[in-house]
Amino acid sequence: LKWLETVKMTNIRLGPGAEFDLIRQFLGDAGHGPDGDPSAVQVGPGDDCAVVSGDLAISVDMTVEGVHFLREWLRPDEIGYRAVAAALSDLAAMAATPIGILVGLALRLEDAHEFGPRIMAGARAAAASANAVLLGGDSARSPGPMVIDVVVVGNAVRPLLRSGARPGDTLWVTGELGAAAAAVRSWKRGDEPEPAARLAFARPTPRIEEANWLAEHGAIGALLDISDGLAGDAGHIAAASDVRIVLDADSIPIHPVVHASSADEALRLALAGGEDYELCFAARPGAVEPLAAQFSEAFGLQLTCVGAVQAGLGVVLRDGNGRIHDLPDTGFDHFGGASG
Amino acid sequence: LKWLETVKMTNIRLGPGAEFDLIRQFLGDAGHGPDGDPSAVQVGPGDDCAVVSGDLAISVDMTVEGVHFLREWLRPDEIGYRAVAAALSDLAAMAATPIGILVGLALRLEDAHEFGPRIMAGARAAAASANAVLLGGDSARSPGPMVIDVVVVGNAVRPLLRSGARPGDTLWVTGELGAAAAAVRSWKRGDEPEPAARLAFARPTPRIEEANWLAEHGAIGALLDISDGLAGDAGHIAAASDVRIVLDADSIPIHPVVHASSADEALRLALAGGEDYELCFAARPGAVEPLAAQFSEAFGLQLTCVGAVQAGLGVVLRDGNGRIHDLPDTGFDHFGGASG
Repeated sequence: LKWLETVKMTNIRLGPGAEFDLIRQFLGDAGHGPDGDPSAVQVGPGDDCAVVSGDLAISVDMTVEGVHFLREWLRPDEIGYRAVAAALSDLAAMAATPIGILVGLALRLEDAHEFGPRIMAGARAAAASANAVLLGGDSARSPGPMVIDVVVVGNAVRPLLRSGARPGDTLWVTGELGAAAAAVRSWKRGDEPEPAARLAFARPTPRIEEANWLAEHGAIGALLDISDGLAGDAGHIAAASDVRIVLDADSIPIHPVVHASSADEALRLALAGGEDYELCFAARPGAVEPLAAQFSEAFGLQLTCVGAVQAGLGVVLRDGNGRIHDLPDTGFDHFGGASG
Repeated sequence: LKWLETVKMTNIRLGPGAEFDLIRQFLGDAGHGPDGDPSAVQVGPGDDCAVVSGDLAISVDMTVEGVHFLREWLRPDEIGYRAVAAALSDLAAMAATPIGILVGLALRLEDAHEFGPRIMAGARAAAASANAVLLGGDSARSPGPMVIDVVVVGNAVRPLLRSGARPGDTLWVTGELGAAAAAVRSWKRGDEPEPAARLAFARPTPRIEEANWLAEHGAIGALLDISDGLAGDAGHIAAASDVRIVLDADSIPIHPVVHASSADEALRLALAGGEDYELCFAARPGAVEPLAAQFSEAFGLQLTCVGAVQAGLGVVLRDGNGRIHDLPDTGFDHFGGASG
């Protein structure tokens, strides 16, 4: 379910493990901070977006046929919508406001005239839903899978980073997790997903207004969006903030469409399934509780406290009996590295 | 030689023809101008870069294995260098100053650890040579060809567009054309290219300082970089500026490494080969001549007047006898559309 091979190389303080070693190699010296004009770069590699020129947030998000989706799963407009919505979620993850997108699109020659315009129609629809415009792009022939690369550009007047969590904070998520992963599970079994699960995968909602609201209300210490699965993304906060995160198994808000054969499997989809595009944030003790009802009323979306931030490193799971589990032991082996 | 399937979808005033029809479909309403917050978007689709937030130029450039290069042709670091240099050339094409790059990299699993870091080392070297930093990126597994998508970000205080040419202007290019195309021709014949041709393909030089110098000296009316071949890119200026461009066959500066079997073939490589990454610009009559010697001295690069701008549409070629040729008739069929 989780695509091990897809990792944002945007974390200066990366966790241990082979995946992160590779990204460190990709970054080279860039991982240690910008070496050009430092005044132009406010946030370099190490977060959901880079921030340059004062307040401009930029991110790039790659979607590859056969890796992130199969073409049998989605209509072309949904492929475009999903790729852009997922990319816009990186702006939400910084509490940035979208300006526009650019799209790089590699297509087989025979797909150019049929699929191409429909993919781009979906891409434009996702952009429009977030008040972003199509600024430009590049198209190329692909001799293999289609590849959609979406660049998002937004204003981040007060960018919220992954590195702001402190011991004593609480950890929160918006909405419910696991529905997109449930859709993928159905497709992989040869079944058609339930409509709610399919929708969660095909038309994710970047939580842009929600992030800005939470930022304006001072609720957020560290922020990202859940693209790799809560366990993995909590690991990004833990690594960037140099803290330990304890997730409460019984608190994880599992989407009702996640009908699993066991509670363990449901939890696994919610923790490691990925592609949720909900927000995950750390907050100072007591900062969120007074706001939760107002937030839910404004956005029709629940806020759930899913864990605690402690001194230490990595991410662990506390079960209903208070027992602590290393996440690799619970089957999230793609995540073995970052949980330490 | 020319990759028909690769077209920047950045031209609001696109020429006629099937390729541009497709791009118009991709752009949808976006081709008619931004529909979001117009104050945030200074230049939308229609040029080498978009410009947002006052003076930030952004472009995306896709390089696909098997389409833009074969892996047998280049070392991994050269693949990364070339992809980034080509993308940075889009900043030169706006007379913008680079800030940074983001890289989307899709690789076969077996290439991740061997090729990936070497590609990124080349990418970082190309960025550093232009004082740009690696701001971030995304990596994904590819089940097929490797795909490198480079996002460039720069400052464009006075962006120079494709749309500024006027009848009466002269048309100029920097440097010499056709060397990269000659390298591709050699590879396709099964030969090793001559070193100068290979270098032109593997390590192109984005003409960033040159473009800024020309802009500061007020020499430029309309500007772009030559990625599709002079004939095609002159067509972009013609379409964007609503003018006709007459190229002088005898004036085209053909790179000395282009040893062709005939003068016609040499001219064809220089006009249609592509991947030159030299600048092409229109200038007011008499504006460039007084600067040419100073430019050559400063940059070790010649400036050549290659044609004239007239009222009308499209691009034509004037031979040594004064005969006018439609470019489609001279064999540039990939360009049949835009030359009218």
